[in-house]
Amino acid sequence: MTTAEPALHPVLRYAGGALTPGADQVAAEEPLEIRLVHGGEERPLGVTMRTPGADPDLVRGWLYAEGAIREAGDLLDLSEWREGELATPNVVRVRLRSGFAALERLSRQTFTSSACGVCGAGSIERLAVRARPALWTRPPLSPELVCSLPGRLRAGQPLFAVTGGLHAAGLFTPDGECLAVREDVGRHNAVDKVIGWALTGGRLPLGDHILTVSSRAGFEIVQKAALAGVPVVCAVSAPTSLAVQVAESFGLTLLGFVRGERFNVYSAPERLQP
Amino acid sequence: MTTAEPALHPVLRYAGGALTPGADQVAAEEPLEIRLVHGGEERPLGVTMRTPGADPDLVRGWLYAEGAIREAGDLLDLSEWREGELATPNVVRVRLRSGFAALERLSRQTFTSSACGVCGAGSIERLAVRARPALWTRPPLSPELVCSLPGRLRAGQPLFAVTGGLHAAGLFTPDGECLAVREDVGRHNAVDKVIGWALTGGRLPLGDHILTVSSRAGFEIVQKAALAGVPVVCAVSAPTSLAVQVAESFGLTLLGFVRGERFNVYSAPERLQP
Repeated sequence: MTTAEPALHPVLRYAGGALTPGADQVAAEEPLEIRLVHGGEERPLGVTMRTPGADPDLVRGWLYAEGAIREAGDLLDLSEWREGELATPNVVRVRLRSGFAALERLSRQTFTSSACGVCGAGSIERLAVRARPALWTRPPLSPELVCSLPGRLRAGQPLFAVTGGLHAAGLFTPDGECLAVREDVGRHNAVDKVIGWALTGGRLPLGDHILTVSSRAGFEIVQKAALAGVPVVCAVSAPTSLAVQVAESFGLTLLGFVRGERFNVYSAPERLQP
Repeated sequence: MTTAEPALHPVLRYAGGALTPGADQVAAEEPLEIRLVHGGEERPLGVTMRTPGADPDLVRGWLYAEGAIREAGDLLDLSEWREGELATPNVVRVRLRSGFAALERLSRQTFTSSACGVCGAGSIERLAVRARPALWTRPPLSPELVCSLPGRLRAGQPLFAVTGGLHAAGLFTPDGECLAVREDVGRHNAVDKVIGWALTGGRLPLGDHILTVSSRAGFEIVQKAALAGVPVVCAVSAPTSLAVQVAESFGLTLLGFVRGERFNVYSAPERLQP
């Protein structure tokens, strides 16, 4: 099994001072749910956001890292799809030699990592209930302003230059004024820090604000923006397929590969000056 | 509160064909435990690997993203440290208007994200019990071989070139032969996929193997390597402080910033040709 082919997504490309229609290959990101089957019962083990492909390898490696299996023989069975389910094999069922004992072990401590935005958070559907409207009442953004955002973010990010290992997230006004920048080894933490700062100041929901991140834009970044009502997300690197999908669903303008005098618009392009 | 200063870590630098002692600023990564206090009781909400600094912002943003609070007033109290505890304020206690109801909500579904290696896994101490010895029985590695690894990894990574959004992990022999490469939007998934592949083939523990990643090396990457007994981890980008600490604890050779004809050795340098 090979990694899923990237999806071709229609974009507006800004280059040479003009926005023109084009298409961009976006890395596939989809949730994979791992379920544990034992004695006729079935319980959820976990969900991971992943690029489809080599799923059995992923599940085995994940079970091993989580301590649920120690050797190949501890995994009795792994099935990717069941008749009557949706065609997309985003559910994997496993049977383990230890039965439900593994579940006990996993649930004893709930950890979330530096880049973990959906841990304990629920499903994508739940996002729809909790998201704030992505309001933008200001004139459309000029591409020049968009291009200036990564530099403005970097100016508030002193530690990256030293370590090369920190991500940053920054909150900007429609005029490009930087309100807050936070750094962290985890890009999701950096976003949490900025939104936590805004929450304390009574600024939520964040209509008419721009969130700029020094990283890629995965599902969790756009999810956090949607929850806070941020209408424009500007990422220095690539978005994922699920990030684009969430941005489209909630009317967020998602800008990616914002580098130098170029960027791509993946959704809600009406907020850009034509 | 500002972000924690990076720690200066002694390294061996390979440049201009020679290894020389130096020092590198490493981004700080430490676990932060969030605990929920209500009516004299205390329960764990979660743990996140983060860069210390702006912790109250992080906790507020995290609670908001997880749906535990909707506005600033839902968080009644946030305390970072208690007398008699360790000086490092790696525990934050919160009191919420909703009491333990938030806990109920969080624990109903356990999610792990694309870059989430410690979700449900337990503590760093537990890693010591489960890690395999990092055995290396072969002659020391030549720096030239190390420098060739990212290129060999890239050769097995067809999708990155197209999307710019995928990470890769590859398993190599001491001679630099590439045994398996897996790609994923999550660097931890890519590592899980490679180790899952090795597990199926009965190759664990992975003594005398090199794990090469296209990304930074955070705690979770080195943790997964330690669990699988991988003695050498080679990262294209920066390591974190906790990754270096784990590598030192378990005798792993951690190589970072492996780019062109240069790299840094953060731990166990005896596996490199002097």
